[in-house]
Formats: sequence, C-alpha cells, structure tokens
Amino acid sequence: MDDSDLTHDAFLGGQVHAWQPREGFRTGVDAVLLAAAVPARAGQFVLELGCGAAVASLCLHRRVPELWLCGVEVQPLYAALARRNAAEAATELVVAESDLLALPAEVRNLDFDHVMMNPPYFTREAGSASANAGRDIARAGETRLDDWIEVATRRLRPGGVLTLIQRVERLPEVLAAMDSRLGAVQVLPVAPRGGQSAGLFLLRAIKGRKSPFRLRPTLVMHRGMRHGDAGDGYAPEVEAVLRHGQALAGFED
Amino acid sequence: MDDSDLTHDAFLGGQVHAWQPREGFRTGVDAVLLAAAVPARAGQFVLELGCGAAVASLCLHRRVPELWLCGVEVQPLYAALARRNAAEAATELVVAESDLLALPAEVRNLDFDHVMMNPPYFTREAGSASANAGRDIARAGETRLDDWIEVATRRLRPGGVLTLIQRVERLPEVLAAMDSRLGAVQVLPVAPRGGQSAGLFLLRAIKGRKSPFRLRPTLVMHRGMRHGDAGDGYAPEVEAVLRHGQALAGFED
Repeated sequence: MDDSDLTHDAFLGGQVHAWQPREGFRTGVDAVLLAAAVPARAGQFVLELGCGAAVASLCLHRRVPELWLCGVEVQPLYAALARRNAAEAATELVVAESDLLALPAEVRNLDFDHVMMNPPYFTREAGSASANAGRDIARAGETRLDDWIEVATRRLRPGGVLTLIQRVERLPEVLAAMDSRLGAVQVLPVAPRGGQSAGLFLLRAIKGRKSPFRLRPTLVMHRGMRHGDAGDGYAPEVEAVLRHGQALAGFED
Repeated sequence: MDDSDLTHDAFLGGQVHAWQPREGFRTGVDAVLLAAAVPARAGQFVLELGCGAAVASLCLHRRVPELWLCGVEVQPLYAALARRNAAEAATELVVAESDLLALPAEVRNLDFDHVMMNPPYFTREAGSASANAGRDIARAGETRLDDWIEVATRRLRPGGVLTLIQRVERLPEVLAAMDSRLGAVQVLPVAPRGGQSAGLFLLRAIKGRKSPFRLRPTLVMHRGMRHGDAGDGYAPEVEAVLRHGQALAGFED
C-alpha cells in the first residue's frame, strides 16, 4: 500500500499522529475513549487486543509514558501501520501479527496488568459484505466476542484490569461471556447527547475481584440536545479527554 | 395476624392504600415505579408474579382501570393482604396463592399481555438470616431468578411485555436468564441522585420481538446531589409518577 492510500491523522489535539488506510476501517473517538479509561500506572504491562493502527496504545502511552506495551493485530496491513506509527512516535510497542486464538509464546507467556480492546462492533452475519476486506474484519470480526474475552481473561495477572469499549447492543453478550474469574465489573454507558439511549459502553473488570456489578452514570459526549444546537460541541469532560489527553473519570476505584 | 400488626399505607399521593405487616417486607417506591413502567392499555390481561400485598397491581389499576389483573403470591399472609387490599380498593384482582413453579391451571392456561415483577433482591446465600420469615422470602427468595424469568416468559402471549425491577448488581444475572424468546430488551437505570451509580434498574422486554438491546437514560430520583441539599426532594418526573400516578416515560416504544 502506497502512502497515497493512507491518511495521517491527529488525535488528542495533535499530541498523537497515526497513519491509517484512506479506505477501510478507520479509528475514531472510540479508541481514544478506550485508552483514556485504562487506569495504567508507570511501569505496568499493557496488552491491546486487535490494536489496528495502534491509536489506543499510542494515546495511552502519551498519557502514561513508562509502560510496556504490546499489541496484537491479525491483519498484516494494520500490524505494519501499528509498527510504523509506534516508531514515528518513538513509542516502544511490540506488535504481534497474530490471530487472537494463536498468540505467539512471547505474548502467551506474559501476564499483563491491563488488557484493553475495542472488538469488532458487528457480527459477520449481521454486517453486510463490504468491498474492503480490512474494514470487514475490523468491523465484523472473524473471532467470537467470547473468545476475545477468554483471551483477555487469560492474559491478565490476578488483580489485572480489563477495559473494553463496545456497542450497547452487545452488552448482554459481553456480560454473558465473562465468567467468575472476572469481577468488580463496571459499565459506563456512552450516549451521544443527554436524554438519548447510550450507543456505546465502556467496561472495566478486574481479574479475581468479587465486588458486585455497577452501572455508572452515563458519559454524554455532546453538550447540545440536538445536532447543530447552539453551543453544540463536546461536553467539557469529553473535550478534556479527546483534545487534552486526560484520563476518563467515569469509573470508580 | 391482628390489624395492630399491620399498617395502612398510602401510595400515589393517597390514591391507593394498602395494608402491610408492620414488621417484615414492606413495599416501597420500587413497586410504584414498576407499575408506572408497565405500558398496559384498557382491556389487557396483566399478571404480577410475587405480588406481595398487591401494591403494584393496585397502582397499575389506578392508572389503567379496565384491566384483568392476576397476582401470584406464595406466602399466605401476603396473599390474604393482597385480597383484602384489592377488595377495599374495589379492584378485581385474582390472587393465586402458589409457588411460581406450580401455578394453578387458571393461571397456567392464560396468556398475558403483561407480566410484571419485583423479584427478591438478594439471593438466600448472600442475605443474612432474618428473624422474620416473611421478609426473608420477600427479600431473599426461595425461587431462582432464572425461574422467575422462565415463568414470566411462558405466561406472556407473543408480543406480550415483561416489566421488572431489580437491583443493578443482578443485571448480568437477569440478562443471562433471558433467552431468544424475549427481545427488544430495554434497561432503564434508576439512580438515587445525579452522578451516582444506579442502584436499581427497570427492564422491559417483548416476547417474540428481535430488536436489539437498548440502554436508556438514567432515571434520577432526587433533585439534590446530596441528601439534605437545599431543594432536595424527588425530581419532577419522579414526583409525577410517585405522587400523581402518571406513567413512567423512560422507555422507548
């Protein structure tokens, strides 16, 4: 793929840049919210499953510089972009080009403090076929959601934290895929505007923790009640995350 | 049980009254919210599982007078109170004193337009033993949550609506208990105050409907951010439900 087939995009108000395919799956705010929700501290090991062009890992690294970062990506094009984006950001990111269900030993043998992921939003059956295979895999996925959660659960150390973002429609499926190894589950709904149903949710779970399920107050992305309202734009706490790279405050410790 | 062991309580700003045991499980706002969330129309058949003293059924009847109402209650004391409360309200309510898993034929042979329920909030293992057996059963339950949902699912006609209220901690369990016979599931979180985690949730599901899961905006009960704040009290839309008997507007049609 030639650079003319790529775009060079800015995230976190220009603090992070990443090359992405012009056509096909393109990272949006979801990956930025995901990274902002990971409660990582300096010195910890972080695994991103399905890292794509590595935007979430780069955003997390920008907020918490001293991390051991590893990304897994099955599509060679995206794995290559992840390596390139990390190199240009001078971020040490190990990218394993691998299917989630056949992780190489260097990933399989590590226990991580954090696993983060933004699994495909649509199941293959539900999504319509696209002319772009890369977008197809990223949007519809070859891997079942319960396999994503199983792999994440295994790779976490006891006390390690899973953070994911997904469409609300799949919340029941995500909850059903988590077994008793994960606890202290918190769901943070993300709604486009006040008074609207949540479209996405962030989820935090801790391996080996038993505390009960919590449903946190909804993160409302936009200030206006309608698209185009006067004063429309991101809510201040969302602006702080998306433009200034701050951590997302919505989960409870 | 003597009347001196009972209290006579007002609901919906005095539009509904009910006798309840002075000690033991006592109906609170949860049953009133439940009834307010049931989208019943005149002429429909409504079943309340675990009706207790029938406060929810009486509240629903107050809002939608022309209904066929049936309640199931396993505890003889509460079944008797339900009959008395219905009689004093001149509400025709058939009360079946029965275990959910052994419904009498007159209930089993009916298909309902609506099933509503407020199943026990605690599992027997998790709850501490109480000196009051009635409260024990109502709070901790003898019947598994998935059995409640199975019985409700069976008793609904195709297109019939299940409405329930439960603690948020048990949302994963409730979702897992619902199978593909139920769809169009909507969850409406109920939080005590703005910015707090939801403590309860209302759920609506429709038998035989396939539309995707939705997470609705949270119903915030109190206006103030803290107990005792100036202007503390119910939010206007909650006041409209609890004091004036209006329908709850939080679900989407």
